[in-house]
Amino acid sequence: MEPTAAIVVIGNEVLSGKVEEDNGRHLVRELRELGVRVVRLWVIPDEVEVIASVVREASALADHVYTSGGVGPTHDDKTMEGVARAFGLGLARNEEFASLLRAFYGERLEDAHLRMADLPEGVELLRGPGMRIPQVKVRNVYVFPGDPAILRRKFAAVRDRFRSAPFHLLRVFTSADEGPIAALLEDAERRHPGVLVGSYPVYDDRGYRVQVTVESKDRLAVEAAHAYIREGLPPGTILAREG
Amino acid sequence: MEPTAAIVVIGNEVLSGKVEEDNGRHLVRELRELGVRVVRLWVIPDEVEVIASVVREASALADHVYTSGGVGPTHDDKTMEGVARAFGLGLARNEEFASLLRAFYGERLEDAHLRMADLPEGVELLRGPGMRIPQVKVRNVYVFPGDPAILRRKFAAVRDRFRSAPFHLLRVFTSADEGPIAALLEDAERRHPGVLVGSYPVYDDRGYRVQVTVESKDRLAVEAAHAYIREGLPPGTILAREG
Repeated sequence: MEPTAAIVVIGNEVLSGKVEEDNGRHLVRELRELGVRVVRLWVIPDEVEVIASVVREASALADHVYTSGGVGPTHDDKTMEGVARAFGLGLARNEEFASLLRAFYGERLEDAHLRMADLPEGVELLRGPGMRIPQVKVRNVYVFPGDPAILRRKFAAVRDRFRSAPFHLLRVFTSADEGPIAALLEDAERRHPGVLVGSYPVYDDRGYRVQVTVESKDRLAVEAAHAYIREGLPPGTILAREG
Repeated sequence: MEPTAAIVVIGNEVLSGKVEEDNGRHLVRELRELGVRVVRLWVIPDEVEVIASVVREASALADHVYTSGGVGPTHDDKTMEGVARAFGLGLARNEEFASLLRAFYGERLEDAHLRMADLPEGVELLRGPGMRIPQVKVRNVYVFPGDPAILRRKFAAVRDRFRSAPFHLLRVFTSADEGPIAALLEDAERRHPGVLVGSYPVYDDRGYRVQVTVESKDRLAVEAAHAYIREGLPPGTILAREG
């Protein structure tokens, strides 16, 4: 079975529009490229109970969970407490993490920084190239910071552990409306189990009316469903195609 | 109390990275400007049971729910069925909506188009400027299409019904690290109930280390908390400020 992922973006600043959501979109693109199917994405506020309940749901739903945000030293950084509570775990000072923070901050270190070393019991610290502070993992939950540049760097350091067989996607661009081809597309999906057929109409002047997508991890099944659709479309309505 | 909102973006194409999420971000910005607090955003697949369960949760959580996507005539358009099931309602052909579709499509009309007139029982049809097809509302759920241009136009036509008292936001940009100011910020929030204090460090060369945000619908409370923070920051560390 293909691995699945859920993404939990934590941050009042995103829900209030002060910061544009970017981390979730980055993870979606990366996971797609890695062959991982994203089954849910949440954006939630910096509230311990909400974080706990959503992380618990995400962890049960998907193979891998990625959180972003809420891991700094200030009062609005509540992710670790929320993740711990999701699994009924306590928070405890992690001495390995604390000593890395001491080395990182040097004489600028404050007690508040060390709060970042209070981690859920049973945490794993993942190391990788370019990470001075390790990646925190609790059960199947990977906890990333909200800063987009740091999240990207940290995800790049661990991404290969998630790689799976690639998705195959073939498209057809047609001048037909959705109405007359709806039955054909439904039929194509029904006849090719495991293949996902998508239909995306456009209403501007891109030169086609509907983009049809056919995808699955099974390349032969994608090709068969794609051929079935091409043959079933009204004559002369295929403007462009892949495959 | 300030009104709250939840946003449910429905679409495999977003979760698979084929289309960049844009509707949720647009609604977040609009709702902020209208004085509505967004408390949750989901991106979910085109699956009836998932739509039903998330819409039910969203409807209980927030005053207003906005969905986008999954309302066309093809097999992957499952939003109406999901919304109906969220509330234990049946789907029934809505004759008013059907006759609008007949007028809209004219001779291009197909049976599949009329499927879009199968709406949850008790639906409300909202009309407004620039809307040839009315906005569908079921209980506190506003169902929008996934096409970004149409979503924007339809939201613009109904947005004024959601307007509430505005949010007030004042910021301070400081050269101090988060560590030494963490206690001050926590204190400011505790002393000014209802005021939300946010702390957003940056790690690049924008010239400041932390952006502190102070916000609430109570302008005087925002000003008081903002003054409290300005006075408590280490001398000489305020690089820029509002208010």
